[in-house]
Formats: sequence, C-alpha cells, structure tokens
Amino acid sequence: MYKYNYLFDFTRNVFMKMGCSASDSKIIAEVFMAAELRDHASHGMIRIKDYYELWKAGRINVKPDVRIVHESPSTAVVDGDNAVGMISARRSMEIAIEKAGKAGTGWVSTRHSNHFGIAGYYSMMALRYDMIGICLTNANPLVAPTFSISRMMGTNPIAVAIPALKQPPFVADFATTPIARGKLAVAEKKGEKVALGLVQDKTGKPSDDPAILKSGGSMLTLGGDRLHGSHKGYCLSAIVDIFCAVFSGANFGPYVPPSVAYLPVLDKKVGEGTGHFFGAMRIDAFQTAHEFKTKMDEWIETFRSAKPAEGQDRVLIPGDPEREAEKRIMKEGINLVPAIKDDLISIAKELKIEFE
Amino acid sequence: MYKYNYLFDFTRNVFMKMGCSASDSKIIAEVFMAAELRDHASHGMIRIKDYYELWKAGRINVKPDVRIVHESPSTAVVDGDNAVGMISARRSMEIAIEKAGKAGTGWVSTRHSNHFGIAGYYSMMALRYDMIGICLTNANPLVAPTFSISRMMGTNPIAVAIPALKQPPFVADFATTPIARGKLAVAEKKGEKVALGLVQDKTGKPSDDPAILKSGGSMLTLGGDRLHGSHKGYCLSAIVDIFCAVFSGANFGPYVPPSVAYLPVLDKKVGEGTGHFFGAMRIDAFQTAHEFKTKMDEWIETFRSAKPAEGQDRVLIPGDPEREAEKRIMKEGINLVPAIKDDLISIAKELKIEFE
Repeated sequence: MYKYNYLFDFTRNVFMKMGCSASDSKIIAEVFMAAELRDHASHGMIRIKDYYELWKAGRINVKPDVRIVHESPSTAVVDGDNAVGMISARRSMEIAIEKAGKAGTGWVSTRHSNHFGIAGYYSMMALRYDMIGICLTNANPLVAPTFSISRMMGTNPIAVAIPALKQPPFVADFATTPIARGKLAVAEKKGEKVALGLVQDKTGKPSDDPAILKSGGSMLTLGGDRLHGSHKGYCLSAIVDIFCAVFSGANFGPYVPPSVAYLPVLDKKVGEGTGHFFGAMRIDAFQTAHEFKTKMDEWIETFRSAKPAEGQDRVLIPGDPEREAEKRIMKEGINLVPAIKDDLISIAKELKIEFE
Repeated sequence: MYKYNYLFDFTRNVFMKMGCSASDSKIIAEVFMAAELRDHASHGMIRIKDYYELWKAGRINVKPDVRIVHESPSTAVVDGDNAVGMISARRSMEIAIEKAGKAGTGWVSTRHSNHFGIAGYYSMMALRYDMIGICLTNANPLVAPTFSISRMMGTNPIAVAIPALKQPPFVADFATTPIARGKLAVAEKKGEKVALGLVQDKTGKPSDDPAILKSGGSMLTLGGDRLHGSHKGYCLSAIVDIFCAVFSGANFGPYVPPSVAYLPVLDKKVGEGTGHFFGAMRIDAFQTAHEFKTKMDEWIETFRSAKPAEGQDRVLIPGDPEREAEKRIMKEGINLVPAIKDDLISIAKELKIEFE
C-alpha cells in the first residue's frame, strides 16, 4: 500500500523531470491522485506511463502557452497548445469560473489539448465558488453509433457538480457508454466474459468477449441496443463531441488523436488535438446561494429516503461512492498491481528519481 | 386521415374557447402539431383532453402573466404563472435567445409551469438565430433511481438542436428512460409483453409487463440496470430535475404535479408547478457561424459514412427520423385512432366548435 503523499510527490517529480513547471506538475499530480482516491484507478497511476511515452515521442508540450483565442461575455475558446491535458483543462475551467463571476455563467470550449484525467475534478472546481461545474471531453474512438460497426466516438464523459448546504455536493461523473473501458480490461485479465449489451463484434452482433475490441469489435453507447435506448446514448456522446470539438476547432469523432504513444498519430486531421468543454453557473444567478443550497439539501434528503429494492440497503446520491472511497483509500493507502509498479520503477530509473 | 391545417385550426380553436389569447392559442397549436408531424403522437392530439380537463378543473391559467423574477446577464428565472406549458416555455426560450444575443449564451430556469409538449420544439427555436438550443423539463414521477422501487423522477427529456450549413440540423430529443411511456401503453393495448430492462415490479424485480406501473411498478432509467449503466441514466434524469426545479423554485422529483386532471393535486409541495430549463448558445460566441456550420456539415457527413451493422442499411443522425416523418405525415395526413377522435368530438361539442 502506498501513502497518498508518496504517490503525489512521485507524480509531481515525474512531470517536473519531463520539464513541466513546479506549479503545473502539482496540478497534474493532484488530478492523478483525485482519480486514485475516487476509486477511478483507470485514470490514476496506471496512466503515468502513457503520458511519459507521449512525452518521449515528442507528442506533448510541457511548456505550453494556453490562451484564449475567441471570447464573448459568457464564452471563450481556449487553445491548449498541446499541453498535458490537466493544464489546459484546469486553465479553461478557471476561465469559465471567471466568466460566470461577471456574466452569471461561463462556457469554455478547448482545442489542441490531450487526455486530462477525470472529468469530475474540473467540475468540482466550481463548488468552492458556489457554482455548478460542468465538464465534458471527447476521447479516442472506440464506440459505435446505433446501427453501426464503425468506431466513431470515445467514451465521452459528462461530469456535473452541484453544491449543497449541509449535505455533500451532488457529483455525477460518467462515461456515455454502459461501462468504462477499464472494466473490459479487468474482465479480460481475469478470463471472464462480460454481460451482453456492452460490446459488439465486428459485424455488429452482440458479444460477451471483453477482448472484442482487439478483433474489430466496438463498445456500445449507453442503452446498449436500439430497443433499450442506445440511440439516446449515441445522442449524448455526439453532443459531447460537438461541444468539445466543433465549438473549439479540435478533432471530432473518429479523428480524435490517441492518448497513448503506441498508437500512431492519425493521417487525417479535422482540427487540433483533443477537445474539452467546461461550464460554470453561478447559483445566485438563479436563486440566492443559501436558498438554492437549502433546496439541494432537501432534494438529496428526498432521494436518500427512496425505498431500496429488495436485496439493496440504500439508494445512492451521485458522488456517494467516490466520497466513501476517498475516506477509505486516504486511510488505507493506494494499492498498485505489480505491472504498474514495475512501469513506475523503470520510469523513475530513466528519470533518475526515487520510487520503490 | 386529417390534414395538418384542419387539426391545427381545431387545436387553436379549443384553446381560444378555453380563454387563451389568439396568439397564445396559435403557439399551443403549433407545438401540438409539431409533435404529430415529428411522429411523437404521444405528445400530440392525444393530450388535448388532458389540457382540457385540467382547465375544467381550474388547474391551469389561460391568462398568465409570464415574467422574469430574477436575472443576470446570461441567466433568468421565469415564473410561468401556471400557464399552459407551451406559453411559459416559449417565452422562456425567447428570453434565453435574447440573453444569448448579448452575453453569448442565455440560460433560463422556469417554475410554476405545466406540461409543455415536445422539448424539441423549443430547442429548435434557436436554430434560426444561428444558435444551439437546449431544452429540459421535469415531469410527474414514474421512474425509480438505481437500486430503488420508489417513483422519484419523470421521464425528464433532454433536447439539443445544433445548426449546420448544407446539412439539416442535428436535433436530439429524448427521454432519460430507455423507452417513452407512450410505448408501454401501446404494448399494453396490443396485449404484448415488453423487453426486460424497461420496467420493474413493485419489489424491484425485472418485469416484461407493460401495465406494471398500475400495480406499483416503475420505469427504469436509461441503462436499465446497474450492470448496463442505469446509474448514469439516474444521474442524467437527476441533473435535468435539479436544473429545472432547484434553479427555478419549481417542484422537484416525486413532488412534480400530475399533468392530468384525473390524478389529484399532491398534498405536499416543495415549489411551484412543473419546472423547465432552456439554453441558447450563439455559435459565433465560439467560432464564426460559417466556420462552425461548415464543420457541422463535415461532422454529419462523417457520421453518415459510418459502416452499418449487418442487417442495417444506414447510420442515422439525430433528427433524421423526425424529418422523414414530417415529410411523410405532411403529405399523407395525420391518423387519429377512434378513441382520440371520440374525445375530440365530445370536447368540440362542449365548446361548441366544429370537429368531425
């Protein structure tokens, strides 16, 4: 088990060694560790190697000039200058929050960025300002639209954080697919099958093979099949893609660049890098903050009081599982499987820093 | 088969007889007919009786004073004064569009409203201004959150309309449940079972009975069960509810008032009436309108070129099915089943207007 501080410091050191500034490296480490703490390990330490390899391949800019290229009172387009995703994303969310301070709401679409970790981190930045935070991103294509076998979209997540008063905030952070890609990898490693309704084979037939992506298969959108509303998942994922990439001038759909160095840069580009979208809404642009947060407490308490189904002991509020994980993991520490540990040891060796 | 104009005029006359102004009645008829044309008959003529009965029961205000009660440069809260939903919704979307004209984006949360027909109608109002339009509404509770058997949410739809240049606009308009409630009613009338993953019985067990809502059952959220991402559908539906009701001061969750007179007004209120949420985003607050719309054409063409699965002949863009229905129905006319026809005949008789 690793202590939070140990992995935080290590991660910061890795990015400082790669040439990121001290303050940027701190932000990047914070986002990595937020993923670990919130039990989204698929976006945590396991990804450090991907960023490191992208940097070695010269595909990421550690001294970026993240800047606004177009704006209105409540909007901006940000060019991330090919930054590590966390840096362009955090700056973009700060701009959204600044805009909201004056105009009531702020909306930023960001191009020329890269993988940014967990979307929830940026949405939660708004909470301390008594704002609702929203964060979307597109991602490399693995998901087929309804009726199709082509991988046209990423798992394109949606994160929304809403403050309450005495209750903890409502924090939703979810991919627009039924399951995260990481869970397919876990099932594959365990030699298990997955439920139908998550992936399909290369002809579009339902599949229970978690490794099907390697043989031309694709992930399905939320809903699974047409009968269960997969076209709604397709709509959601498409909206995320358009807000992130068409608003900003990033690559959309099948042209989103890979977030790993072992996949080649695509021949065709329709924009710059990966795209994100950020929103901040001042709650007192609608109700006084106190009134709104009191109502949110009531909303949360009402939903907590819903009757559990047989065999369930309670109904959760979005954000509950992650909060509980945070408490547990902060206390117990973070477990890294041997393969990840080995990766980090060899990165440490190459960069001449400590890790054991 | 009825001609569009005949049903339009009839609907307008019904609402004028109920005391709505001529211009309000025209708007209401337009929204009803938009539902029929887009093949969402569940929100068309079948609902006229519900509105009529609500009016007879004195539960709806035909001379409303729809007004802004709070605002910032990019936001407003509108009080619908218990109007027919179409009137408060249309005015609210106009305000969102006006705000967007100045601030880049406009966001309106509306309380004390009623059922407003199809959400897509309001989102599409933004298109002619080269804006993206967004519309959400909460609705009376039929849907259980993940792990619960309590009906806590409506089918809470999301509509997003995005303009293109040569291509028709992208228009998504979907409930945050796998299936519309109307489709359950159709299956019930035909004596058919429905697929698993749409509804559950009163204990939370999967059910294929389309009439299960009558015996304490509930609809499931998009995703169906936890394994297939129902918690994501729950998040979406909850976000819609909070934006519509907590921002505005309307009733949320299980307290949303029924949109039919045969269900009693609830004892407990946590706000005023039903809530909606509207957004308008000027596309040139991000990119020049021409650049954006050209990119949207490219986005749409890219997705149209996705490979269909075996047995499918093409991949659809959100809005395609409705556009095709519009053309067909405008030409062929609108079919009303005998039960609806009978309802309209008796309403016509009571109001002393023509219908046959």
